[in-house]
Amino acid sequence: RKRILVTGGAGFVGSHLVDQLMLQGHEVTVADNYFTGRRRNVQHWIGHPNFELLHHDVVEPLMIEVDQIYHLASPASPVKYMYNPVKTIKSNTIGTINVLGLAKRVKARVLFASTSEIYGDPEEHPQKETYWGHVNTIGPRACYDESKRVAETLMYAYSKRDHIDVRVARIFNTYGPRMHMYDGRVVSNFIVQTLNGHPLTVYAPGNQTRSFMYVSDLVSGLMKLMNSNYSLPCNLGNPEEHTILEFAQLVQDITGVKGKVSMKKSQQDDPHKRKPDITVAKTQLGWEPKVSLRDGILKTTAYFRKELGLVN
Amino acid sequence: RKRILVTGGAGFVGSHLVDQLMLQGHEVTVADNYFTGRRRNVQHWIGHPNFELLHHDVVEPLMIEVDQIYHLASPASPVKYMYNPVKTIKSNTIGTINVLGLAKRVKARVLFASTSEIYGDPEEHPQKETYWGHVNTIGPRACYDESKRVAETLMYAYSKRDHIDVRVARIFNTYGPRMHMYDGRVVSNFIVQTLNGHPLTVYAPGNQTRSFMYVSDLVSGLMKLMNSNYSLPCNLGNPEEHTILEFAQLVQDITGVKGKVSMKKSQQDDPHKRKPDITVAKTQLGWEPKVSLRDGILKTTAYFRKELGLVN
Ligand SMILES: NC(=O)c1ccc[n+]([C@@H]2O[C@H](COP(=O)([O-])OP(=O)(O)OC[C@H]3O[C@@H](n4cnc5c(N)ncnc54)[C@H](O)[C@@H]3O)[C@@H](O)[C@H]2O)c1
Ligand SMILES: NC(=O)c1ccc[n+]([C@@H]2O[C@H](COP(=O)([O-])OP(=O)(O)OC[C@H]3O[C@@H](n4cnc5c(N)ncnc54)[C@H](O)[C@@H]3O)[C@@H](O)[C@H]2O)c1
Ligand SMILES: O=c1ccn([C@@H]2O[C@H](COP(=O)(O)OP(=O)(O)O)[C@@H](O)[C@H]2O)c(=O)[nH]1
Ligand SMILES: O=c1ccn([C@@H]2O[C@H](COP(=O)(O)OP(=O)(O)O)[C@@H](O)[C@H]2O)c(=O)[nH]1
Ligand SMILES: O=c1ccn([C@@H]2O[C@H](COP(=O)(O)OP(=O)(O)O)[C@@H](O)[C@H]2O)c(=O)[nH]1
Ligand SMILES: O=c1ccn([C@@H]2O[C@H](COP(=O)(O)OP(=O)(O)O)[C@@H](O)[C@H]2O)c(=O)[nH]1
Repeated sequence: RKRILVTGGAGFVGSHLVDQLMLQGHEVTVADNYFTGRRRNVQHWIGHPNFELLHHDVVEPLMIEVDQIYHLASPASPVKYMYNPVKTIKSNTIGTINVLGLAKRVKARVLFASTSEIYGDPEEHPQKETYWGHVNTIGPRACYDESKRVAETLMYAYSKRDHIDVRVARIFNTYGPRMHMYDGRVVSNFIVQTLNGHPLTVYAPGNQTRSFMYVSDLVSGLMKLMNSNYSLPCNLGNPEEHTILEFAQLVQDITGVKGKVSMKKSQQDDPHKRKPDITVAKTQLGWEPKVSLRDGILKTTAYFRKELGLVN
Repeated sequence: RKRILVTGGAGFVGSHLVDQLMLQGHEVTVADNYFTGRRRNVQHWIGHPNFELLHHDVVEPLMIEVDQIYHLASPASPVKYMYNPVKTIKSNTIGTINVLGLAKRVKARVLFASTSEIYGDPEEHPQKETYWGHVNTIGPRACYDESKRVAETLMYAYSKRDHIDVRVARIFNTYGPRMHMYDGRVVSNFIVQTLNGHPLTVYAPGNQTRSFMYVSDLVSGLMKLMNSNYSLPCNLGNPEEHTILEFAQLVQDITGVKGKVSMKKSQQDDPHKRKPDITVAKTQLGWEPKVSLRDGILKTTAYFRKELGLVN
C-alpha cells in the first residue's frame, strides 16, 4: 500500500487512474485546479478514508508526503491548451519543476504524462521512441508540444542530478467516458455530433491519420510503466491507424446512427499521421491494448448518451 | 535615449552589447548572476551615471522600469550549460517568464537571444528560419536546446496574449575577446591551445562544420533587429562554413603558430553541420557580417595573449 499523488487526477485519464489505484487499496491524493477536470469525475471517492482531493494548481509549490507521483496536470485537447498558451507552458514547465522538487524532497518516483505530440508532424512512421520529432517552435501547437518536450528534458535532468526515479509515458490519442463533451477532440466531437444528429465535422484534408486507444488500456499501461524498471520514454498507444474520414464512417457504423460529413478547413500544423510503435511497451512491460475500437466507441457513446440526457 | 535592461550583460556577448548601447548614450542596466560572466567585462562602465549593475538571477522576479530588454541570461557553451542542466532549464524557462512578466508590466520591447541549437543536428542545410529543427529531447544538449525552444514559444505566446513587442535572434557560433578562456568552446580552446603550445583537440570525426561570427557583427545585428519592425525569428550568423579540422589549420595559419592536432572521441549528439541562411537578416535588417575570420581571430588571439600574461 502506497501513498500516491495524481496531479490532474480530476481529469479524464486521471480519474480512471484514480479508480484503479483506489481499488488496489492505495492512499490517493489528487491535486487539480479544475481547469479542464471536474470534481464530478472523482465524486464517488469523496469521503473515502484513503482519498484526498486538493484544489491546487501545480504552478504553485506543493508540500506533501508521498511515495509515487503520476504527473498528469496539463490541458490535453488542442482547443483547451490553445486557450491560454502561456498558462499551458507554465503548467508543464514550472508545474513539472515543482513536482520534481517535491519528488526530490520526499524521494518519490514520478511518472510524467508526455504525449505523441512531442513527435509533432512526424516524418518517421510509425513513431519509435528514438525518433526526435518534428515540431514548429512558434506554431499554434507549440505551447503544448514544446512544453511537454522540455518537461521530458526536466525529468531526466532532475533524475540524473538528484537521483530521482522517473518514468516517461508518451501517450497517443486516448478516448473513453469522462472525456469532456465540448473540448473539441475528434472522438467526442464525432460521437456527440452523431447523437445530436449534426453533421460530423472533418477537418481537411480528412486523410490525416490517428490511432485511438481506449482509456482502460492506457491506465493499465501507466501503472505497469510506473511499477516497472524501465526508465526511458515509453510509447503507450493503440497501433490501429485510421484516417479521420474512415473514423467518421466507423463511428456511424458502430453507433448505428447514419450522419452526414461536413468538411471544414484544415488546422495549421495538424499532424498528417500518427501511429505508435509499441515494441518497447510490449517487450519491457508486457503491455498491449486490449479493447477493440468497437467496444470502446460503444462504451463512450453510452456515456455521452447519459451526459446528453438521452437516457436515464 | 532609452532605458535598456541587458540580462546576462556581464557575459561575453552581453558586455560588448553594453559597450555599444552606452556609447549611444542610453541608460543601461545589467542583471547578471555571474555564473559564466564577470564584473570585469563591464568594469570600465562602473561609476558611469548611465550604468547600473545588478547582481541578480533571472530565475527570481525583477521589478524595474525600462523601455527595452535584451534577454541574454543563459550559459552558452556546452561545457557550462551541461554543468547543471536543471539550472540551465530554469534560467531559460522561469527566467524568460519573469522577463516577459516584466516586459508586460512596463510595456517594454524584448529581444530574446535564441540559438542555432534550436535546429539541433539539422537535416536541412543551410538552416532557414522556417526549418523546424531536429533535437533529441533527452540527449545531453537537450537542457539548452529544448529550453531555448520553449523560450521562443513563450515569447510568441506572451506577445499574442499580452501584446508585448518581441524579437527573437537565432544566434550562430560567435567568438571574440571576453570569451571565457576555459569554457570549452572550439574557438577559445584552439587559440589558447595554440598559444600554450598544446595540441589542438579536435573531437571526432572532425568533418563536422561550423560557421563563426565575430562578436561585433553579432552586436550590430542584435541592435538592428531590436530596432526593426521584424518580429519573427531571425538568424544572425556568418555563413562562411568550415569543418573543424580545417578550422584547426586556419587558426594555426592565421596566428602563425604551428601546432599539432590531437583527435579526441566524438561528443554525443554533436551537430554534424551548421550554417545560417541569412536572407531574412539581409533583406529585413540590411545586415550582414563584415569582419573576416582572419581579422576576428587575430583580435581574439591578441586578447587571449593578454589574458595568458604573454604580453603586457
Ligand atoms: N487524452 C489523450 O489523448 C492524451 C494524449 C497524450 C497525452 N495526454 C496527457 O495526459 C494527461 C491527462 O490528459 P486528459 O486527457 O485526462 O486531459 P484532461 O484535460 O481531462 O485532464 C487534465 C487535468 O489536469 C488538470 N490541470 C490542468 N492544468 C493544471 C494545473 N496547472 N494545475 C493542476 N491541475 C491542472 C485539469 O483540470 C484536468 O483535470 C495530460 O497531461 C495530457 O497532456 C493525454
Ligand atoms: N556565443 C555564442 O556563440 C552564442 C550562440 C548562440 C546563442 N548565444 C546566446 O547568447 C547569450 C549570451 O551568450 P554568451 O556567449 O555571451 O555567453 P556567456 O556565458 O558569456 O554569457 C551569459 C551571461 O548570462 C549570465 N547568466 C547565466 N544564467 C543566468 C541567470 N540565471 N541569471 C542571470 N544571469 C545569468 C552569465 O553569468 C553570463 O554573464 C546566451 O543566451 C546564449 O545562449 C550565444
Ligand atoms: O516538497 C516540495 C519541494 C519543492 N517544491 C518546489 O519545487 C521547485 C523545484 O525544487 P528544487 O529543489 O529544484 O528547487 P531549487 O532548490 O533548485 O530552488 C521549487 O520551486 C519548490 O518550491 C515543492 O513544490 N514541493
Ligand atoms: O471535429 C474534429 C476534431 C478533430 N478533427 C481532426 O482529428 C484529428 C485529431 O484531432 P484531436 O483534436 O482529437 O487531437 P490531436 O491528435 O490533433 O491532438 C486531427 O487531425 C483533427 O484535425 C476533425 O477532423 N474534426
Ligand atoms: O515587473 C515584473 C512583473 C512580473 N515579474 C514576474 O514575471 C512572472 C510572469 O508574469 P506574469 O504576469 O505572466 O505572471 P502571472 O500574472 O501570469 O502570474 C511572474 O512570476 C512575476 O513574478 C517580474 O519579474 N517583474
Ligand atoms: O576543443 C574542442 C571543442 C569543440 N570542438 C568541436 O567544435 C564544434 C563546436 O563546438 P563548440 O563547443 O564551440 O560549440 P557548439 O557549436 O557545438 O555549440 C563541435 O563540433 C565540437 O565537437 C572540438 O573539436 N574541439
